[in-house]
Amino acid sequence: MAAEPTSLTVLSLARAYRAGELDPVDVTEAYLRAIREHPQGSLVYRCTTEERALRQAEEASRRFRAGIDTGPLQGVPIAVKDLLDMEGEVTTAGAKVFLDRPPATEDAPVLARLDAAGATFLGRTTMTELAYSGIGINPHFGTPGCARDPERVPGGSSSGSGVAVAAGLAAAAVGSDTGGSVRIPASVNGIVGLKTTDGRIPTEGAAPLSTTLDTLGPMARTADDAWVLFQAMAAEPFRELPEPAERLVALAPTTVLQEDLEGPVADVFRSALARLERLGVEVREVAMPVLAELNQLHGRFGSFASAEAFALYEDVLTQRGDAMDPRVVHRILQVRDRSVADYIRLGYAREALRQRFWPELAGVDAIVAPTLPILPPRIADLEDDEAYYRANGRILRNTTLFNLLASPAVSVPGGDTAEGLSVGLMIATRPGEEALALGIARRFADAASG
Amino acid sequence: MAAEPTSLTVLSLARAYRAGELDPVDVTEAYLRAIREHPQGSLVYRCTTEERALRQAEEASRRFRAGIDTGPLQGVPIAVKDLLDMEGEVTTAGAKVFLDRPPATEDAPVLARLDAAGATFLGRTTMTELAYSGIGINPHFGTPGCARDPERVPGGSSSGSGVAVAAGLAAAAVGSDTGGSVRIPASVNGIVGLKTTDGRIPTEGAAPLSTTLDTLGPMARTADDAWVLFQAMAAEPFRELPEPAERLVALAPTTVLQEDLEGPVADVFRSALARLERLGVEVREVAMPVLAELNQLHGRFGSFASAEAFALYEDVLTQRGDAMDPRVVHRILQVRDRSVADYIRLGYAREALRQRFWPELAGVDAIVAPTLPILPPRIADLEDDEAYYRANGRILRNTTLFNLLASPAVSVPGGDTAEGLSVGLMIATRPGEEALALGIARRFADAASG
Repeated sequence: MAAEPTSLTVLSLARAYRAGELDPVDVTEAYLRAIREHPQGSLVYRCTTEERALRQAEEASRRFRAGIDTGPLQGVPIAVKDLLDMEGEVTTAGAKVFLDRPPATEDAPVLARLDAAGATFLGRTTMTELAYSGIGINPHFGTPGCARDPERVPGGSSSGSGVAVAAGLAAAAVGSDTGGSVRIPASVNGIVGLKTTDGRIPTEGAAPLSTTLDTLGPMARTADDAWVLFQAMAAEPFRELPEPAERLVALAPTTVLQEDLEGPVADVFRSALARLERLGVEVREVAMPVLAELNQLHGRFGSFASAEAFALYEDVLTQRGDAMDPRVVHRILQVRDRSVADYIRLGYAREALRQRFWPELAGVDAIVAPTLPILPPRIADLEDDEAYYRANGRILRNTTLFNLLASPAVSVPGGDTAEGLSVGLMIATRPGEEALALGIARRFADAASG
Repeated sequence: MAAEPTSLTVLSLARAYRAGELDPVDVTEAYLRAIREHPQGSLVYRCTTEERALRQAEEASRRFRAGIDTGPLQGVPIAVKDLLDMEGEVTTAGAKVFLDRPPATEDAPVLARLDAAGATFLGRTTMTELAYSGIGINPHFGTPGCARDPERVPGGSSSGSGVAVAAGLAAAAVGSDTGGSVRIPASVNGIVGLKTTDGRIPTEGAAPLSTTLDTLGPMARTADDAWVLFQAMAAEPFRELPEPAERLVALAPTTVLQEDLEGPVADVFRSALARLERLGVEVREVAMPVLAELNQLHGRFGSFASAEAFALYEDVLTQRGDAMDPRVVHRILQVRDRSVADYIRLGYAREALRQRFWPELAGVDAIVAPTLPILPPRIADLEDDEAYYRANGRILRNTTLFNLLASPAVSVPGGDTAEGLSVGLMIATRPGEEALALGIARRFADAASG
């Protein structure tokens, strides 16, 4: 093998293992070394879990020698967002105040599934405190810079997972997505991130932010790799990502999703649409007023995340708020002023819009949009709270719509700007149609590299 | 036929129709006449729907003549609680302020199913305003007296439906049960009332009280009749109520369910337990602390119904509250002071208790308890608001637990007191096990009449 093992995709690693060209222990050690040596290693990982990783790698190695094959994740080193329970480790959810919690007594179901599939757990990645922002700044454990430009934000809340996969510090990663937290760091760091259908992957053992909207999803270098992780997380048997039909129809709504795009984002998106057309995807640019209605829900009624995070974390927010990210505390505690009726009506309104959304789109296979309307801001530009809140609102705007719709949505690298930043293309499909979203993403990405 | 047709059970009517001894039009007319002539007829029904009933009866009659048989409800006159949409009729949900609403443009799905099964709709029965009380007093449309003693409350909120079935003013009825509103009037009026499993019967087209807890259920003279209605409401093909296993185990929890029973209620309940034992049901009297936890939920966090009714009806409650039942308005508006966190935590706590309840009861088939801990109060004794609220809390106490558990629960006449009042026996089973609850109820009732 000429290439560094840490530069390989999951599927390439799997092939190299099966060909006897690499060994899981060596690869896991190479990753752990890369994390130690990388200037941002300790900002990407809140902590590594070396002992667990090596134990898993030795077990994978033993299995290969014994002719046992649990599928393409056997021996693959992955990163885990610091909100998932991992046996023996403390779950901080990005909050310093949770460092004194007892270690988890067992793996979250999704990690137990990845463990059973043979993955090795390199460590626990940095995240926005309580996952409560799309920016990715963490004032306690530090903020890894964007993989494309360390002066810019990494995107959040799964910031460490996004940078780790892009920077060769993990072959793939697990993130969570409540308003865009898998897709935003995927977009910003130039990788693939999949927000899964509501309820498809169990969220037990994940520190909750919004029990209504929380989902878990894979982050990887390719759509095929994301598909491999998704299947393990969903406890599905491995099969190859199916190739979608040759001719497809995608909507590119102008409403909300294409409003106020930064210039370079608009440019990359237009060329991405042109590429889709060349690939057999008929793109229809249309106004969709229902997206404006969805986009107004949180403004009218408050957000699910703020109300539910308040219910979940009121004690720590009020008693130890001075040791927490003031921007997180401030925004969650604002919900105190909201009436219970607002929250209940938010649920009713979301449900009504969700139920009519896809049924009104017969003949349409997917929706495409820029994952973010803006480029990742410079960290230095967000010192002002107002600038931070404004950027956070913009960064979450497009992704959140598909959390409200309970749909799967993948962010795939859509192209680079002149200054080398990555712009994500978001592809959303009907609930349960992860394979179609990833299949379109693969076709799109293959055409770029081909 | 010697008996008055209005005294027949659904199954007896069905047999008489099939034997050509009765005709649906005659029977429907007999019921409409009985309603007109009964001193309480206009208190039991907010309005009759004669034209619809006769149209349905003629259709049923035609079908019998043509040899078409849609099952045991064909030609059976039933009463409908005034919160279900019926094509061409105004849905008041017991509120005078809703009388000026436009008539419903279509039947609620549950009524469409009963219509398809051949039932005839006699009219719309009186209920507590917005279904928001278990007492059954309605200050606008009047309060029918209890079928056993008109000076006592009829139980609510499906008050008219309960009295109608007991007094020969409907062969069976449809009610709704959010905290006991089917079972309480069933208990008080000496009939069978089934609270169904959450989600089993569609609640679309029913004026909501609590979107979390609302259920629809049948009220009938026998368990077999309730089963016939249940199957039509659930869009299940008709089959006979299966006979449960010979040997069964029932818990009779002492916690909450047997606390502070009125003397005659305790006496009837003890003799009911003895009868169950004679019928092959092993009764185990046990403490169940989880029931105390469930019973405290609404006190700790506020109720689902108050928060959701506030979200649903805030406008009318605040703008036209002076034309509404002040006891309903007062209790719902209290929720304004509650934090959104209370409501969200209520959901979390209910879900946690619900999920562990039945799984911890392996080997147990059912739970039995008095439906109400008290006898129906005298209407005159409830003029004082405090007395009313206290009685309402007590009357709802036992039934509400099974709404929180999402279980089916039937109230079957458990026996009469010395003064001729009826005391209901409540039999609750695991979610989805309506047939078992009704099967035990039938065995119990048959032993009484046998």
